[in-house]
Amino acid sequence: MRPVAVIGAGMTKFGRSEWPLLKLMNVASLAALNDANLGDVKVDGVVVANMGAARLNKQTAIASALVDRLNLFPAMAESVENGPASGASAFKVGYQAIASGMADVVLVTGVEMMRAVNNLEVTDFVASLSHPEAEYIYGVTLPGLAGMFARLYMERYGVTREHLAMVAIKNHANAMKNPYAHIHQTVTMEGILTAPEAVVNNPPIAEPLHMFDCCPVSDGAAAVVLATQEIAEKLGRQVVRVAGIGQATDTHAVHERPDPTELTAVRLAAQRAFSMASLTPQDIDVAELHDAFTILEIAESEEVGFFKKGEGHKALAEGVTSLGGKLPINPSGGLKAKGHPVGATGVAQLVELTWQLRGEAGERQVENAKNAFACNFGGFGNNVVATVLTREG
Amino acid sequence: MRPVAVIGAGMTKFGRSEWPLLKLMNVASLAALNDANLGDVKVDGVVVANMGAARLNKQTAIASALVDRLNLFPAMAESVENGPASGASAFKVGYQAIASGMADVVLVTGVEMMRAVNNLEVTDFVASLSHPEAEYIYGVTLPGLAGMFARLYMERYGVTREHLAMVAIKNHANAMKNPYAHIHQTVTMEGILTAPEAVVNNPPIAEPLHMFDCCPVSDGAAAVVLATQEIAEKLGRQVVRVAGIGQATDTHAVHERPDPTELTAVRLAAQRAFSMASLTPQDIDVAELHDAFTILEIAESEEVGFFKKGEGHKALAEGVTSLGGKLPINPSGGLKAKGHPVGATGVAQLVELTWQLRGEAGERQVENAKNAFACNFGGFGNNVVATVLTREG
Repeated sequence: MRPVAVIGAGMTKFGRSEWPLLKLMNVASLAALNDANLGDVKVDGVVVANMGAARLNKQTAIASALVDRLNLFPAMAESVENGPASGASAFKVGYQAIASGMADVVLVTGVEMMRAVNNLEVTDFVASLSHPEAEYIYGVTLPGLAGMFARLYMERYGVTREHLAMVAIKNHANAMKNPYAHIHQTVTMEGILTAPEAVVNNPPIAEPLHMFDCCPVSDGAAAVVLATQEIAEKLGRQVVRVAGIGQATDTHAVHERPDPTELTAVRLAAQRAFSMASLTPQDIDVAELHDAFTILEIAESEEVGFFKKGEGHKALAEGVTSLGGKLPINPSGGLKAKGHPVGATGVAQLVELTWQLRGEAGERQVENAKNAFACNFGGFGNNVVATVLTREG
Repeated sequence: MRPVAVIGAGMTKFGRSEWPLLKLMNVASLAALNDANLGDVKVDGVVVANMGAARLNKQTAIASALVDRLNLFPAMAESVENGPASGASAFKVGYQAIASGMADVVLVTGVEMMRAVNNLEVTDFVASLSHPEAEYIYGVTLPGLAGMFARLYMERYGVTREHLAMVAIKNHANAMKNPYAHIHQTVTMEGILTAPEAVVNNPPIAEPLHMFDCCPVSDGAAAVVLATQEIAEKLGRQVVRVAGIGQATDTHAVHERPDPTELTAVRLAAQRAFSMASLTPQDIDVAELHDAFTILEIAESEEVGFFKKGEGHKALAEGVTSLGGKLPINPSGGLKAKGHPVGATGVAQLVELTWQLRGEAGERQVENAKNAFACNFGGFGNNVVATVLTREG
């Protein structure tokens, strides 16, 4: 396989977009292209990550539309959908286009405009990834699945609501240092858990998960430019190499898993990514995990191999995963506070890690980060993509 | 690049499906997998081609669902969308997964269940690929664009409504020999054009195009299994090699093209596919072209290089493109009569060509076909994928 590098990264501020869908994509794409500073090197492929524009925004074939807006003719283009893991799936498809030799430079842009519809429809839309005959028709939603998962996890491993709140507090604090984050609001244990008014300010969504355990509904776009390592070096860029990509699937219905607290696809995807990169979890300096719900950051931090099963919440409580800790997790603010425009999320994780590896993450910079890891979690863990990026030199 | 072969092909009958979406996908996939006869060789990737399940069927992440139904864990999986060219785009993504070395065996399944909604919504859904600010909001639909294109083409090149009808008559005749075709109805020049009752039986849709110039609204699924040529040979299969894939984009809005009768993306995609295959249009023995409207078969047959510009309708009238002619086009019945479940179409074209190259096309077999060509046309020609398949030995 030809080595592939990330040579450009950019994103819009996540939140509520005043722009139409195509402008969101355009702004993030131009930021990444400007960053890549291609000169006369041409983009020959475009991959868009998007989950629901056909339904939410009544637009299809938006990859072709993006080529048109950016005047990248006659670049190849298509969209990739893999639920909330669409972003990393599209990144993988862009990687393969280059690794296979069919393209030299590929733009990967993730986008979602979810606030175009109301919250009830958003919840129904996201639930459309659940099993149509075994989950969806019984009213199962993603918060519902996460609530049941959290309950079992807490009982088995001694995780408490305080631990869940620590994830929110940490990630909100990180997001304060990220100008692209959806939510800029410092939260405290008192404010969301122990004060009497926390009952009102942090209402239950799907017990034991409360509002501050759930990511917001966001609009946003994020983009990276991929190229052969040869082109990256020719352009004189700091090379951020795509060292490993791993993907794995699991049962569609969560209740069919022998042990629903085991996220097998997370474990396998991470193993595959580390194996391809010839690295171990202990080599990672910074990670973005898919904390659509606070419990998921804890569970994923164990399944990918950073901590032993049942130990993730202890590492969290000890500050290991905070900025300044041994392995900062979600320095961007994560889905929890940076936001979760589903198609954009997996790409945005890799935008943050590119910035971290290049030393461009400002106030939230993880010092001297060389190896970075992302986990993009599709379905309720039925399709997971893990990515390892490495700074060369 | 590692050589890649098609080692399995299958599809459902196109038409109105009594099955839910996932069963449609499942049936076509199992047909292709049975055909591939993999034994203990594992499928390590699944690519689904689909344009509108999020909107039409309220289902997302259907690639993961397909892995679940087929028990292919932990295979990688995602969906690819590129409007009506989703099928060939997904085929390309599957090809790249193998060519890049990330997978050895990939299932590519195209599906669309369009009759879940009424015809007005289908037309609106398909129009969601048009330019949102320059076309869609003015009520432009795909039949509308095709009607304007046909009018200009007829004026410039002397194409008549009789020529358009000849495409329909030929493709309906071919579909009579295809058990998988949506429409089994012989049509005649008298019945759809010259008889007095043709005015009623073949009403105008978007002048000069009438009902029998337009493809039907179909449900259906089609699937192929791709593998390294090494695996194909080990399994002892007749090798149908993926010799070339070319893709090109053009302006989103049709009126922005210097000459709207020029389908630049069709020309470029074909050139790229032929170049990769080291073949010329004159080497092709059988072709499937994207005849969503009769005029498109004529125009594409010229742009891809089979006939000079303005000569396609003459070749058609002389029988060159009929079964038994020098270059049979759309032996399957084409979109016109086989049907056009948008996400499935590009894959179904390659299913037909695989059967043709293996000599398994029954009554519609093109004798001793060695090189085959498909054109899958996305948008109104703003994203086109061309594929060349070659029988080895």
